[in-house]
Amino acid sequence: MSGGIILLDFWASMFGMRTRIALAEKAVKYEYREEDLWNKSDLLLEMNPVYQKVPVLIHNGKGICESLIQLHYIDEVYNNRAPLLPANAYKRANVRFWADFVDKKIYDSGSKLWKTKGEELEAAKKEFLENMKLLEGELGDKLYFGGSTGKDFGYMDIAFVTFYSWFYTYEQFGNFSIEAECPKLIAWVKRCMQKESVSKTLPDPQKVYEFVLELRKKYGIE
Amino acid sequence: MSGGIILLDFWASMFGMRTRIALAEKAVKYEYREEDLWNKSDLLLEMNPVYQKVPVLIHNGKGICESLIQLHYIDEVYNNRAPLLPANAYKRANVRFWADFVDKKIYDSGSKLWKTKGEELEAAKKEFLENMKLLEGELGDKLYFGGSTGKDFGYMDIAFVTFYSWFYTYEQFGNFSIEAECPKLIAWVKRCMQKESVSKTLPDPQKVYEFVLELRKKYGIE
Repeated sequence: MSGGIILLDFWASMFGMRTRIALAEKAVKYEYREEDLWNKSDLLLEMNPVYQKVPVLIHNGKGICESLIQLHYIDEVYNNRAPLLPANAYKRANVRFWADFVDKKIYDSGSKLWKTKGEELEAAKKEFLENMKLLEGELGDKLYFGGSTGKDFGYMDIAFVTFYSWFYTYEQFGNFSIEAECPKLIAWVKRCMQKESVSKTLPDPQKVYEFVLELRKKYGIE
Repeated sequence: MSGGIILLDFWASMFGMRTRIALAEKAVKYEYREEDLWNKSDLLLEMNPVYQKVPVLIHNGKGICESLIQLHYIDEVYNNRAPLLPANAYKRANVRFWADFVDKKIYDSGSKLWKTKGEELEAAKKEFLENMKLLEGELGDKLYFGGSTGKDFGYMDIAFVTFYSWFYTYEQFGNFSIEAECPKLIAWVKRCMQKESVSKTLPDPQKVYEFVLELRKKYGIE
Protein backbone atom coordinates (compact mmCIF):
# COMPACT_ATOMS: atom_id res chain seq x y z
CA MET A 1 0.00 0.00 0.00
CA SER A 2 3.11 2.30 0.09
CA GLY A 3 1.85 3.95 3.29
CA GLY A 4 -1.53 4.45 1.68
CA ILE A 5 -0.33 6.92 -0.94
CA ILE A 6 -1.39 6.58 -4.55
CA LEU A 7 -0.74 9.04 -7.37
CA LEU A 8 -3.08 8.94 -10.37
CA ASP A 9 -1.10 10.59 -13.10
CA PHE A 10 -0.11 10.70 -16.77
CA TRP A 11 3.55 10.62 -17.80
CA ALA A 12 3.48 13.83 -19.91
CA SER A 13 1.52 15.97 -17.41
CA MET A 14 3.64 18.89 -16.23
CA PHE A 15 1.22 19.14 -13.32
CA GLY A 16 1.66 15.51 -12.32
CA MET A 17 5.46 15.88 -12.63
CA ARG A 18 5.33 18.60 -9.97
CA THR A 19 3.78 16.21 -7.48
CA ARG A 20 6.26 13.47 -8.41
CA ILE A 21 9.21 15.84 -7.82
CA ALA A 22 7.77 16.99 -4.47
CA LEU A 23 7.28 13.39 -3.33
CA ALA A 24 10.86 12.57 -4.43
CA GLU A 25 12.22 15.63 -2.57
CA LYS A 26 10.44 14.41 0.55
CA ALA A 27 11.55 10.79 -0.06
CA VAL A 28 7.94 9.62 0.19
CA LYS A 29 7.20 6.18 -1.25
CA TYR A 30 3.97 5.91 -3.21
CA GLU A 31 2.16 3.82 -5.75
CA TYR A 32 2.19 5.41 -9.21
CA ARG A 33 -0.79 4.62 -11.41
CA GLU A 34 -0.67 5.71 -15.03
CA GLU A 35 -4.09 6.85 -16.27
CA ASP A 36 -5.41 6.36 -19.79
CA LEU A 37 -6.72 9.89 -20.42
CA TRP A 38 -9.16 8.57 -23.03
CA ASN A 39 -10.52 5.95 -20.68
CA LYS A 40 -10.16 7.29 -17.16
CA SER A 41 -10.30 4.93 -14.20
CA ASP A 42 -13.30 4.81 -11.91
CA LEU A 43 -10.98 5.80 -9.08
CA LEU A 44 -9.98 9.02 -10.87
CA LEU A 45 -13.61 9.96 -11.53
CA GLU A 46 -14.48 9.20 -7.89
CA MET A 47 -11.55 11.12 -6.42
CA ASN A 48 -11.75 14.15 -8.72
CA PRO A 49 -15.42 14.38 -9.72
CA VAL A 50 -15.24 18.15 -10.37
CA TYR A 51 -12.45 18.27 -12.95
CA GLN A 52 -11.84 14.56 -13.69
CA LYS A 53 -8.18 15.36 -14.29
CA VAL A 54 -4.78 14.05 -13.26
CA PRO A 55 -2.87 14.36 -11.04
CA VAL A 56 -4.84 13.10 -8.07
CA LEU A 57 -2.96 12.34 -4.88
CA ILE A 58 -4.74 9.82 -2.69
CA HIS A 59 -3.69 9.67 0.94
CA ASN A 60 -5.51 7.51 3.48
CA GLY A 61 -8.33 7.06 0.99
CA LYS A 62 -8.91 10.79 0.46
CA GLY A 63 -8.27 12.58 -2.81
CA ILE A 64 -6.29 15.79 -3.06
CA CYS A 65 -6.67 17.55 -6.42
CA GLU A 66 -4.79 20.31 -8.25
CA SER A 67 -1.00 20.08 -8.32
CA LEU A 68 -0.18 23.32 -6.46
CA ILE A 69 -2.56 22.29 -3.67
CA GLN A 70 -0.85 18.89 -3.61
CA LEU A 71 2.53 20.61 -3.22
CA HIS A 72 1.22 22.51 -0.20
CA TYR A 73 -0.27 19.32 1.23
CA ILE A 74 2.95 17.34 0.76
CA ASP A 75 4.99 20.16 2.31
CA GLU A 76 2.66 20.37 5.31
CA VAL A 77 2.31 16.65 5.96
CA TYR A 78 5.99 15.74 5.41
CA ASN A 79 7.38 18.75 7.21
CA ASN A 80 10.41 16.99 8.66
CA ARG A 81 12.58 17.27 5.54
CA ALA A 82 13.23 19.36 2.41
CA PRO A 83 10.82 22.27 3.08
CA LEU A 84 9.37 23.43 -0.23
CA LEU A 85 7.87 26.79 0.76
CA PRO A 86 9.84 29.71 2.19
CA ALA A 87 9.58 30.28 5.94
CA ASN A 88 9.01 34.01 5.41
CA ALA A 89 5.36 34.99 4.77
CA TYR A 90 6.16 37.58 2.10
CA LYS A 91 8.46 35.20 0.22
CA ARG A 92 5.76 32.55 0.48
CA ALA A 93 3.24 34.98 -1.06
CA ASN A 94 5.75 35.74 -3.82
CA VAL A 95 6.37 32.11 -4.85
CA ARG A 96 2.62 31.43 -4.71
CA PHE A 97 2.09 34.39 -7.03
CA TRP A 98 4.59 33.14 -9.61
CA ALA A 99 3.46 29.51 -9.49
CA ASP A 100 -0.09 30.76 -10.09
CA PHE A 101 1.29 32.88 -12.97
CA VAL A 102 2.78 29.74 -14.55
CA ASP A 103 -0.64 28.06 -14.38
CA LYS A 104 -2.55 31.05 -15.71
CA LYS A 105 -0.14 32.33 -18.32
CA ILE A 106 2.58 29.86 -19.35
CA TYR A 107 0.32 26.82 -19.59
CA ASP A 108 -2.33 28.60 -21.66
CA SER A 109 -0.05 30.44 -24.06
CA GLY A 110 2.20 27.36 -24.32
CA SER A 111 -0.74 25.10 -25.23
CA LYS A 112 -1.86 27.51 -27.93
CA LEU A 113 1.54 27.10 -29.61
CA TRP A 114 0.68 23.56 -30.67
CA LYS A 115 -3.10 23.89 -30.79
CA THR A 116 -3.45 26.91 -33.08
CA LYS A 117 -2.28 28.23 -36.46
CA GLY A 118 -1.86 31.52 -38.33
CA GLU A 119 -2.66 34.73 -36.48
CA GLU A 120 -3.70 32.92 -33.33
CA LEU A 121 -0.34 31.15 -33.27
CA GLU A 122 1.51 34.43 -33.80
CA ALA A 123 -0.40 36.01 -30.89
CA ALA A 124 0.32 32.99 -28.67
CA LYS A 125 4.01 33.15 -29.55
CA LYS A 126 4.23 36.81 -28.58
CA GLU A 127 2.32 36.20 -25.35
CA PHE A 128 4.34 33.11 -24.46
CA LEU A 129 7.68 34.85 -24.89
CA GLU A 130 6.52 37.93 -22.97
CA ASN A 131 5.44 35.70 -20.10
CA MET A 132 8.72 33.80 -20.19
CA LYS A 133 10.61 37.08 -20.03
CA LEU A 134 8.63 38.11 -16.95
CA LEU A 135 9.78 34.87 -15.35
CA GLU A 136 13.37 35.50 -16.48
CA GLY A 137 13.11 38.94 -14.83
CA GLU A 138 11.76 37.44 -11.61
CA LEU A 139 14.61 34.91 -11.52
CA GLY A 140 17.18 37.64 -12.19
CA ASP A 141 20.58 36.55 -10.95
CA LYS A 142 19.24 34.16 -8.32
CA LEU A 143 20.22 30.51 -8.57
CA TYR A 144 16.64 29.39 -7.94
CA PHE A 145 13.22 31.00 -7.67
CA GLY A 146 13.50 30.10 -4.04
CA GLY A 147 12.46 27.45 -1.58
CA SER A 148 12.60 27.44 2.21
CA THR A 149 15.34 30.05 2.54
CA GLY A 150 14.17 32.02 -0.47
CA LYS A 151 17.46 31.12 -2.18
CA ASP A 152 17.32 27.37 -2.64
CA PHE A 153 15.29 24.99 -4.81
CA GLY A 154 11.64 24.80 -3.79
CA TYR A 155 7.94 25.24 -4.55
CA MET A 156 8.16 27.69 -7.46
CA ASP A 157 11.12 25.89 -9.01
CA ILE A 158 9.11 22.65 -8.94
CA ALA A 159 6.02 24.42 -10.30
CA PHE A 160 7.88 25.72 -13.34
CA VAL A 161 10.73 23.32 -14.12
CA THR A 162 8.35 20.56 -15.22
CA PHE A 163 7.47 22.72 -18.23
CA TYR A 164 11.02 22.19 -19.45
CA SER A 165 9.94 18.80 -20.79
CA TRP A 166 7.56 20.74 -23.10
CA PHE A 167 10.02 23.48 -24.15
CA TYR A 168 11.19 21.51 -27.21
CA THR A 169 7.56 21.14 -28.32
CA TYR A 170 6.89 24.85 -27.78
CA GLU A 171 10.02 25.68 -29.79
CA GLN A 172 9.11 23.40 -32.68
CA PHE A 173 5.64 24.89 -33.15
CA GLY A 174 6.54 28.44 -32.12
CA ASN A 175 9.69 28.47 -34.24
CA PHE A 176 11.86 30.18 -31.63
CA SER A 177 14.71 29.27 -29.30
CA ILE A 178 13.93 29.66 -25.61
CA GLU A 179 17.67 29.64 -24.86
CA ALA A 180 18.21 32.58 -27.22
CA GLU A 181 15.26 34.50 -25.72
CA CYS A 182 15.72 33.58 -22.05
CA PRO A 183 19.27 32.34 -21.40
CA LYS A 184 18.98 32.73 -17.62
CA LEU A 185 15.94 30.46 -17.51
CA ILE A 186 17.82 27.74 -19.40
CA ALA A 187 20.81 28.07 -17.05
CA TRP A 188 18.33 27.70 -14.16
CA VAL A 189 16.76 24.60 -15.79
CA LYS A 190 20.23 23.04 -16.04
CA ARG A 191 20.82 23.69 -12.32
CA CYS A 192 17.47 22.11 -11.48
CA MET A 193 18.26 19.10 -13.68
CA GLN A 194 21.27 18.36 -11.49
CA LYS A 195 18.77 17.28 -8.85
CA GLU A 196 17.82 13.65 -9.12
CA SER A 197 14.23 14.46 -8.09
CA VAL A 198 13.94 16.54 -11.28
CA SER A 199 16.07 14.62 -13.78
CA LYS A 200 14.47 11.28 -12.89
CA THR A 201 10.95 12.74 -13.17
CA LEU A 202 11.06 14.75 -16.38
CA PRO A 203 10.44 12.71 -19.54
CA ASP A 204 12.52 13.05 -22.70
CA PRO A 205 11.38 16.28 -24.47
CA GLN A 206 11.50 14.39 -27.80
CA LYS A 207 9.01 11.86 -26.45
CA VAL A 208 6.68 14.70 -25.38
CA TYR A 209 6.99 16.17 -28.89
CA GLU A 210 6.05 12.85 -30.50
CA PHE A 211 3.08 12.60 -28.14
CA VAL A 212 1.94 16.10 -29.16
CA LEU A 213 2.26 15.17 -32.84
CA GLU A 214 -0.14 12.31 -32.14
CA LEU A 215 -2.47 14.64 -30.22
CA ARG A 216 -2.54 17.04 -33.16
CA LYS A 217 -3.50 14.17 -35.47
CA LYS A 218 -6.21 13.08 -33.04
CA TYR A 219 -7.63 16.62 -32.84
CA GLY A 220 -7.29 17.20 -36.57
CA ILE A 221 -4.76 20.05 -36.21
CA GLU A 222 -2.32 19.87 -39.09
CA MET B 1 0.60 54.96 8.16
CA SER B 2 -1.79 52.44 9.83
CA GLY B 3 1.15 50.15 10.67
CA GLY B 4 2.32 50.45 7.09
CA ILE B 5 -0.63 48.60 5.57
CA ILE B 6 -2.39 49.96 2.51
CA LEU B 7 -5.10 48.25 0.47
CA LEU B 8 -5.55 49.36 -3.13
CA ASP B 9 -9.04 48.27 -3.97
CA PHE B 10 -12.32 48.99 -5.74
CA TRP B 11 -15.62 48.91 -3.84
CA ALA B 12 -17.40 46.39 -6.10
CA SER B 13 -14.50 43.91 -6.37
CA MET B 14 -15.49 40.59 -4.84
CA PHE B 15 -11.77 39.86 -4.67
CA GLY B 16 -10.98 43.04 -2.76
CA MET B 17 -13.88 42.36 -0.39
CA ARG B 18 -12.22 39.09 0.57
CA THR B 19 -9.13 40.90 1.75
CA ARG B 20 -11.23 43.51 3.59
CA ILE B 21 -13.13 40.77 5.44
CA ALA B 22 -9.90 38.96 6.36
CA LEU B 23 -8.35 42.18 7.69
CA ALA B 24 -11.54 42.86 9.69
CA GLU B 25 -11.54 39.32 11.11
CA LYS B 26 -7.96 39.88 12.23
CA ALA B 27 -8.78 43.40 13.55
CA VAL B 28 -5.94 44.83 11.45
CA LYS B 29 -6.05 48.58 10.86
CA TYR B 30 -5.13 49.71 7.35
CA GLU B 31 -5.44 52.55 4.91
CA TYR B 32 -8.06 51.88 2.23
CA ARG B 33 -7.43 53.53 -1.13
CA GLU B 34 -10.17 53.39 -3.73
CA GLU B 35 -8.79 52.97 -7.25
CA ASP B 36 -10.26 54.47 -10.38
CA LEU B 37 -10.19 51.39 -12.62
CA TRP B 38 -10.16 53.59 -15.72
CA ASN B 39 -7.24 55.64 -14.46
CA LYS B 40 -5.18 53.44 -12.22
CA SER B 41 -2.74 54.94 -9.76
CA ASP B 42 1.00 54.79 -10.30
CA LEU B 43 1.25 52.89 -7.04
CA LEU B 44 -1.07 50.15 -8.35
CA LEU B 45 0.94 49.81 -11.58
CA GLU B 46 4.16 49.71 -9.60
CA MET B 47 2.94 47.18 -7.03
CA ASN B 48 1.14 44.86 -9.47
CA PRO B 49 2.99 45.29 -12.77
CA VAL B 50 2.01 41.83 -14.04
CA TYR B 51 -1.79 42.06 -13.82
CA GLN B 52 -2.33 45.75 -12.93
CA LYS B 53 -5.41 44.74 -10.97
CA VAL B 54 -6.94 45.37 -7.56
CA PRO B 55 -6.75 44.31 -4.82
CA VAL B 56 -3.14 44.96 -3.91
CA LEU B 57 -2.14 44.68 -0.28
CA ILE B 58 0.91 46.73 0.56
CA HIS B 59 2.75 45.84 3.75
CA ASN B 60 6.04 47.47 4.70
CA GLY B 61 6.32 48.83 1.17
CA LYS B 62 5.96 45.44 -0.53
CA GLY B 63 3.01 44.49 -2.71
CA ILE B 64 1.10 41.25 -2.29
CA CYS B 65 -1.18 40.46 -5.24
CA GLU B 66 -4.09 38.07 -5.83
CA SER B 67 -6.76 37.90 -3.15
CA LEU B 68 -6.40 34.25 -2.16
CA ILE B 69 -2.65 34.77 -1.72
CA GLN B 70 -3.44 37.85 0.39
CA LEU B 71 -5.73 35.72 2.58
CA HIS B 72 -2.88 33.28 3.18
CA TYR B 73 -0.50 36.14 3.89
CA ILE B 74 -2.87 37.81 6.36
CA ASP B 75 -3.52 34.49 8.10
CA GLU B 76 0.20 33.77 8.39
CA VAL B 77 1.31 37.24 9.53
CA TYR B 78 -1.56 37.84 11.98
CA ASN B 79 -1.59 34.35 13.39
CA ASN B 80 -2.48 35.33 16.93
CA ARG B 81 -6.25 35.61 16.32
CA ALA B 82 -9.12 34.35 14.17
CA PRO B 83 -7.28 31.64 12.18
CA LEU B 84 -8.72 31.51 8.67
CA LEU B 85 -7.33 28.20 7.42
CA PRO B 86 -8.02 24.82 9.02
CA ALA B 87 -5.28 23.34 11.18
CA ASN B 88 -5.65 19.96 9.48
CA ALA B 89 -3.64 19.59 6.24
CA TYR B 90 -6.35 17.66 4.37
CA LYS B 91 -9.04 20.19 5.35
CA ARG B 92 -6.68 22.96 4.28
CA ALA B 93 -6.25 21.29 0.88
CA ASN B 94 -10.03 20.98 0.62
CA VAL B 95 -10.81 24.67 1.29
CA ARG B 96 -8.00 25.69 -1.08
CA PHE B 97 -9.57 23.50 -3.76
CA TRP B 98 -13.02 25.08 -3.39
CA ALA B 99 -11.75 28.66 -3.19
CA ASP B 100 -9.81 28.01 -6.40
CA PHE B 101 -13.02 26.55 -7.87
CA VAL B 102 -14.85 29.80 -7.07
CA ASP B 103 -12.15 31.74 -8.94
CA LYS B 104 -12.06 29.41 -11.93
CA LYS B 105 -15.74 28.59 -12.30
CA ILE B 106 -18.10 30.93 -10.43
CA TYR B 107 -16.37 34.16 -11.41
CA ASP B 108 -16.15 33.26 -15.09
CA SER B 109 -19.64 31.86 -15.56
CA GLY B 110 -21.07 34.66 -13.37
CA SER B 111 -19.40 37.36 -15.46
CA LYS B 112 -20.77 35.84 -18.66
CA LEU B 113 -24.30 36.31 -17.27
CA TRP B 114 -24.05 40.06 -17.68
CA LYS B 115 -21.49 40.18 -20.51
CA THR B 116 -23.21 37.90 -23.04
CA LYS B 117 -26.53 37.36 -24.77
CA GLY B 118 -28.52 34.67 -26.55
CA GLU B 119 -27.02 31.18 -26.73
CA GLU B 120 -23.88 32.23 -24.92
CA LEU B 121 -25.99 33.55 -22.04
CA GLU B 122 -28.02 30.33 -21.93
CA ALA B 123 -24.80 28.28 -21.75
CA ALA B 124 -23.42 30.55 -19.01
CA LYS B 125 -26.65 30.21 -17.02
CA LYS B 126 -26.50 26.43 -17.16
CA GLU B 127 -22.82 26.41 -16.22
CA PHE B 128 -23.27 28.94 -13.41
CA LEU B 129 -26.11 27.01 -11.78
CA GLU B 130 -24.28 23.69 -12.12
CA ASN B 131 -21.25 25.23 -10.41
CA MET B 132 -23.43 26.71 -7.66
CA LYS B 133 -24.99 23.30 -7.07
CA LEU B 134 -21.55 21.74 -6.69
CA LEU B 135 -20.87 24.33 -3.98
CA GLU B 136 -24.24 23.64 -2.39
CA GLY B 137 -23.27 19.94 -2.34
CA GLU B 138 -19.90 20.70 -0.77
CA LEU B 139 -21.57 22.81 1.93
CA GLY B 140 -24.13 20.08 2.60
CA ASP B 141 -25.55 20.41 6.09
CA LYS B 142 -22.52 22.19 7.50
CA LEU B 143 -22.96 25.67 8.97
CA TYR B 144 -19.88 27.00 7.14
CA PHE B 145 -17.47 25.73 4.50
CA GLY B 146 -15.01 25.64 7.34
CA GLY B 147 -12.26 27.67 8.93
CA SER B 148 -9.71 26.70 11.53
CA THR B 149 -11.68 23.81 13.03
CA GLY B 150 -13.18 22.80 9.71
CA LYS B 151 -16.59 23.74 11.12
CA ASP B 152 -16.43 27.49 11.67
CA PHE B 153 -16.28 30.54 9.40
CA GLY B 154 -12.97 30.86 7.56
CA TYR B 155 -10.96 31.03 4.34
CA MET B 156 -13.40 29.39 1.93
CA ASP B 157 -16.39 31.21 3.45
CA ILE B 158 -14.58 34.51 2.90
CA ALA B 159 -13.56 33.50 -0.63
CA PHE B 160 -17.15 32.81 -1.67
CA VAL B 161 -19.45 35.02 0.44
CA THR B 162 -18.25 38.21 -1.27
CA PHE B 163 -19.99 36.99 -4.44
CA TYR B 164 -23.28 37.42 -2.62
CA SER B 165 -23.10 41.14 -3.40
CA TRP B 166 -23.26 40.12 -7.09
CA PHE B 167 -26.03 37.49 -6.76
CA TYR B 168 -28.79 40.04 -7.46
CA THR B 169 -26.97 41.07 -10.66
CA TYR B 170 -26.53 37.44 -11.72
CA GLU B 171 -30.22 36.82 -11.06
CA GLN B 172 -31.37 39.84 -13.05
CA PHE B 173 -29.42 38.91 -16.17
CA GLY B 174 -29.72 35.14 -15.75
CA ASN B 175 -33.43 35.30 -14.95
CA PHE B 176 -33.29 32.75 -12.14
CA SER B 177 -33.56 32.72 -8.36
CA ILE B 178 -30.47 31.50 -6.55
CA GLU B 179 -32.54 30.92 -3.40
CA ALA B 180 -34.92 28.64 -5.36
CA GLU B 181 -32.00 26.75 -6.93
CA CYS B 182 -29.62 26.64 -3.95
CA PRO B 183 -31.53 27.28 -0.69
CA LYS B 184 -28.71 25.99 1.52
CA LEU B 185 -26.25 28.47 0.02
CA ILE B 186 -28.61 31.36 0.80
CA ALA B 187 -29.08 30.11 4.38
CA TRP B 188 -25.27 30.01 4.65
CA VAL B 189 -24.99 33.57 3.25
CA LYS B 190 -27.43 34.75 5.94
CA ARG B 191 -25.32 33.12 8.64
CA CYS B 192 -22.17 34.78 7.25
CA MET B 193 -23.96 38.15 7.10
CA GLN B 194 -24.45 37.99 10.86
CA LYS B 195 -20.72 38.61 11.11
CA GLU B 196 -19.86 42.28 11.18
CA SER B 197 -16.70 41.62 9.15
CA VAL B 198 -18.96 40.47 6.31
CA SER B 199 -22.01 42.72 6.64
CA LYS B 200 -19.91 45.87 6.94
CA THR B 201 -17.79 44.91 3.92
CA LEU B 202 -20.34 43.79 1.35
CA PRO B 203 -21.90 46.62 -0.67
CA ASP B 204 -25.62 46.88 -1.38
CA PRO B 205 -26.42 44.36 -4.19
CA GLN B 206 -28.65 46.99 -5.81
CA LYS B 207 -25.67 49.35 -6.04
CA VAL B 208 -23.59 46.61 -7.70
CA TYR B 209 -26.43 46.04 -10.19
CA GLU B 210 -26.54 49.74 -11.07
CA PHE B 211 -22.76 49.71 -11.52
CA VAL B 212 -23.07 46.72 -13.88
CA LEU B 213 -25.79 48.52 -15.88
CA GLU B 214 -23.29 51.35 -16.38
CA LEU B 215 -20.56 48.86 -17.32
CA ARG B 216 -22.82 47.30 -19.93
CA LYS B 217 -23.45 50.75 -21.41
CA LYS B 218 -19.73 51.48 -21.42
CA TYR B 219 -18.97 48.17 -23.18
CA GLY B 220 -21.90 48.52 -25.58
CA ILE B 221 -23.74 45.43 -24.29
CA GLU B 222 -27.46 46.03 -24.48
